[in-house]
Amino acid sequence: MAEAASVRAAIGDSEFDRDTAVTLREPGVYDIDLSAGWTIIGAVNGGYLLAVLGRALADALPHGDPFTISAHYLTASQPGPAVVRTDVVRTGRTLSTGQASLFQIDEDGNEVERIRVLASYGDLGSLPDDVRTTAKPPVIPPVEQCFDPQDAPDPVPGGSAITDRLFLKLDPTTLGWALGAPSGKGEMRSWFGLADGRDPDPFALLLAVDALPPTAFELGISGWVPTVELTVHVRSWPAPGPLRVSITTRNLAGGFLEEDAEVWDSADRLVAQSRQLARVKLSG
Amino acid sequence: MAEAASVRAAIGDSEFDRDTAVTLREPGVYDIDLSAGWTIIGAVNGGYLLAVLGRALADALPHGDPFTISAHYLTASQPGPAVVRTDVVRTGRTLSTGQASLFQIDEDGNEVERIRVLASYGDLGSLPDDVRTTAKPPVIPPVEQCFDPQDAPDPVPGGSAITDRLFLKLDPTTLGWALGAPSGKGEMRSWFGLADGRDPDPFALLLAVDALPPTAFELGISGWVPTVELTVHVRSWPAPGPLRVSITTRNLAGGFLEEDAEVWDSADRLVAQSRQLARVKLSG
Repeated sequence: MAEAASVRAAIGDSEFDRDTAVTLREPGVYDIDLSAGWTIIGAVNGGYLLAVLGRALADALPHGDPFTISAHYLTASQPGPAVVRTDVVRTGRTLSTGQASLFQIDEDGNEVERIRVLASYGDLGSLPDDVRTTAKPPVIPPVEQCFDPQDAPDPVPGGSAITDRLFLKLDPTTLGWALGAPSGKGEMRSWFGLADGRDPDPFALLLAVDALPPTAFELGISGWVPTVELTVHVRSWPAPGPLRVSITTRNLAGGFLEEDAEVWDSADRLVAQSRQLARVKLSG
Repeated sequence: MAEAASVRAAIGDSEFDRDTAVTLREPGVYDIDLSAGWTIIGAVNGGYLLAVLGRALADALPHGDPFTISAHYLTASQPGPAVVRTDVVRTGRTLSTGQASLFQIDEDGNEVERIRVLASYGDLGSLPDDVRTTAKPPVIPPVEQCFDPQDAPDPVPGGSAITDRLFLKLDPTTLGWALGAPSGKGEMRSWFGLADGRDPDPFALLLAVDALPPTAFELGISGWVPTVELTVHVRSWPAPGPLRVSITTRNLAGGFLEEDAEVWDSADRLVAQSRQLARVKLSG
């Protein structure tokens, strides 16, 4: 990757691994210090949070890879201490199902639930190698012709720490919004990786599906688009190297919209699919 | 609708309403007798089960309409008594989030969890009327040129009670499988309604997304395709009249596939979107 560090970080020994690592407190209960490094305008990124919950469930369940994980976002998470409580719903030979919730202490000293997830885990390495994918990889210009989020004439107000930790190279044809000329199409495409060069794994895929600017920007909406619910299917262990992420919105109506993400790996495999329901909050 | 009963059933007073009605046993706990009328080859239909859980949550939460509901299917449900336990996760002004599980007693007298769902509810009637949908309704031939599932030369072995309760008129271009010549495309399209003429509501949409033959049939797979996880977004209260359902599979790989459903109402609105992850179990 063009901007990767000269020494690439390894899976298990990288910024992303350290910042999503959960510590077992007692059976099924994990502590985590949510890093301020994965925020955008002060809000902790939803994909980072999903990776944290995903790692807790990988420890609590007999299977280690998220196959399908659904998250409902309840209240806004803050950087700082949090606790993840897991519940094993069912264990099976091929799949196990678990539930997890992330809690934080609010300013009044009350424990508040931030996110609840339900997920089924398996072993991606055990899957047969058959592929009958009819979907085609997104066409994104070469990295050199794409743009960093920091290249925007109007950088995100309040700063966004997360962009320092990501390798994002946005397709210029989905960047009309940054020049004040949104295309009107609900599309966003980008190359995706981790800035320290760590290769992708299933947990990085949970991050990838929620890391691009909202498609709503290209629909001419400049407000906040908080996620209500996000479901990710991880379909294959990603090959090393940069990912391509394509996000599409086809139904903006009634103040809500869906964002469908596809994540393709360097071997041209569709390694993850996601859909989220988000609310449109117009800026005042 | 062509085959509707001469007197159309009304919402609240129909077969579907009676068969999904839950009875409050104690706060948050509901009894239901799962009807054998919504089975296919003996298995209770996943969309019918989702409607049952959806109705329990509508009672338990302060909001009545499912906006996004995610179900993980754990074990196969049987017709007969079941209990639904609900948990209010968070109540808000616009959205409330709840969890529900359906349990049955197995042959050994143990209580077994069949399905667990996580859902956020709101009030569809309160949504603004803005629509900026870029998706287009599926093109399905007129009802008279479409086919009942019963028209297949090889009717489903073991019978399928559910088809008697549905108004399904399948697009002949997605019925190659029924003639032994699957198209190789992961597509299935149909007109959809309830056989007694009851108009659709949000709970009928939960049924609609999982009522067509599996797209896997058109991919040449004749085995069983059990749902692992199903998430439905209900985006609008459906207009009266028949619905059009379009299901697409783009990624059959590693023994799993996704099914994406779109449900369009008679007013050409995209009223529901769903995605499920299903397992391919080849018949022996």
